[in-house]
Amino acid sequence: MESMIKSYNDATHKLHYHNISRDLSVLKKALNNYDDKIESDMYGNGKIINDFESKMADLLGKESAVFFPSGTMAQQIAVRIWCDLKGVKTVAYHAKSHLEIHEQDGIKKLHNINTILLGEKDRLFTLSDLKTIKEKPGVVLLELPQREIGGQLPEFDEIVEISKYCKFNNIAIHLDGARLLECLPYYHKTAKEICRLFDSVYISFYKGLGGIAGAILAGNISLCEESKIWKRRHGGDLISLYPYVLSADYYYELRKERMESYYKTAVHLAIELNNIKHFRTIPKTPVTNMFHIHINLPMELVEQLLIMIYNKTSVALKPGLIITNEGCMMELATGDALNEISEAKLKEFLKSLSTEFAKI
Amino acid sequence: MESMIKSYNDATHKLHYHNISRDLSVLKKALNNYDDKIESDMYGNGKIINDFESKMADLLGKESAVFFPSGTMAQQIAVRIWCDLKGVKTVAYHAKSHLEIHEQDGIKKLHNINTILLGEKDRLFTLSDLKTIKEKPGVVLLELPQREIGGQLPEFDEIVEISKYCKFNNIAIHLDGARLLECLPYYHKTAKEICRLFDSVYISFYKGLGGIAGAILAGNISLCEESKIWKRRHGGDLISLYPYVLSADYYYELRKERMESYYKTAVHLAIELNNIKHFRTIPKTPVTNMFHIHINLPMELVEQLLIMIYNKTSVALKPGLIITNEGCMMELATGDALNEISEAKLKEFLKSLSTEFAKI
Repeated sequence: MESMIKSYNDATHKLHYHNISRDLSVLKKALNNYDDKIESDMYGNGKIINDFESKMADLLGKESAVFFPSGTMAQQIAVRIWCDLKGVKTVAYHAKSHLEIHEQDGIKKLHNINTILLGEKDRLFTLSDLKTIKEKPGVVLLELPQREIGGQLPEFDEIVEISKYCKFNNIAIHLDGARLLECLPYYHKTAKEICRLFDSVYISFYKGLGGIAGAILAGNISLCEESKIWKRRHGGDLISLYPYVLSADYYYELRKERMESYYKTAVHLAIELNNIKHFRTIPKTPVTNMFHIHINLPMELVEQLLIMIYNKTSVALKPGLIITNEGCMMELATGDALNEISEAKLKEFLKSLSTEFAKI
Repeated sequence: MESMIKSYNDATHKLHYHNISRDLSVLKKALNNYDDKIESDMYGNGKIINDFESKMADLLGKESAVFFPSGTMAQQIAVRIWCDLKGVKTVAYHAKSHLEIHEQDGIKKLHNINTILLGEKDRLFTLSDLKTIKEKPGVVLLELPQREIGGQLPEFDEIVEISKYCKFNNIAIHLDGARLLECLPYYHKTAKEICRLFDSVYISFYKGLGGIAGAILAGNISLCEESKIWKRRHGGDLISLYPYVLSADYYYELRKERMESYYKTAVHLAIELNNIKHFRTIPKTPVTNMFHIHINLPMELVEQLLIMIYNKTSVALKPGLIITNEGCMMELATGDALNEISEAKLKEFLKSLSTEFAKI
């Protein structure tokens, strides 16, 4: 595995996201845009953080917004507040929700909230899945796009119906919008038009936007004010969050208009990859800038081939693979990298993939 | 109140800490010391964070150390782990412990841990106080110095006895060392020699050291590994913590040798302030770089006088006061500011204080 990372690092063109390392220059570039004399936030207060929170509340069409160091913290807190308000300590979400598989069960261990897994692991959950639950949860959490299955999206009308059902049944509905901006081109909707269907929403700043870290939780004033108390309890009410706030704002402004182009390049790249022997993407046609590449060959073999191709072309997809039942896979997200690479270079890389994998 | 903040901000010499605003330049100055190509940490891994953790483990004489975004998070987690290990969900600490008064009861609300308040609010707790507890707690948390009573310190032998008592009674003992480095000159001890008396220790990087934010939790390997799981649960295992790590390291190196001088200037300044009518400091003779200034006059009157003196001399103590039973008070901590101000300028300020308050 070591050498696949090396050949990835050595490659001039990294097709995942923005062809940049997550190095110190990313932060310096953002900070250099701001005056030295800008005052730090202080425990959640101050122009530097409150202005950004207002801007995000406007973007998302909510009364208020609160900046958090992480989405993990923001979402657990939103779920906790809704459960307390509804008097039901249960959240229903997709079986591969971030809360279920990436947070060491914080929602259960810190908040004593039970979870209901909706639908099946390898597909989106539907309104029908939700209707089958006997005891209504306090809150439903819907992730757009559903990352762990390649960034799939329900049709907009399905979300409308889920939202209506929740409202009718006194269930809160929260949007895990870690990659919300990345969905907008597919839906042809504004963030506001989507968030209107949810009681609260979280967005992240280091996925498609390429910031350092940090998250926004938006909702009504009462939710947001209570979330600040929980932020303090979690240890997230830092004396200074501005390194994340400023970089979030900088990269949001830099990339917010590029989501359409990221989406288009993802669709185009997926078509090319699906033409390569042993390759298939999920979804077949991406609906955001992300998709999964499944390769039905043993991981070690795929590694060897990719290392060779990365080294030969100086173009790379990802530094690693994940074993699956049918072989291996990787998650890819497009960004500036695919906008910047020359057509000839990309063609050379795809040709090389095509040729080498056809031999097997 | 607004105008006291203004006259503080306008003053050329701010005697609290390092005569600097918490503005963006503090971070930029630190980051400019590091190469652009340094790779970000990734969810707690990577040279940039692990090297600093090792360095802090060495400093504190512990097997291992983990970087946290905040002390609130680090300490709740340490307490939780010790309580789980001891099978007793109770922590005993000073009535004005940070966990009791500044964290919105996170330890209770997130971890269901009961608290026992030792001794009385306005003095250090003693071994005798600890011995009076009927049901032994899982962990004792001792804060050095005890910030909320002016940064008082128990004698070293008292800590030794408390530590022995805990060990003998199978109680874990945790050090809230937010300002640990600031205690070393008084004790004439190394950090290691103090930390040896504790099972775990937390230190902070934005008090005397003047960093941006961030904390270290140190202890045995097992504690530290489990604390990483809880860090994830709390939402503190950020994809990138390096803005805090690098600034912590930078300001640690810059100021670690200055604690002795900060302590001496605090002692000197307290003597002068105690000579001013209506003023008294707690402790009378500081034992670290911090102390409280109590003024037995109505807050509004003190504000007016201080605004006038700040404006006249361009020297300031703090931007605000806190109401007390006998008048008002402020917490002061010395740092680079008192090392840098000219003797004449300081004298002018003290003279002005002395003259104006003598009139009342």
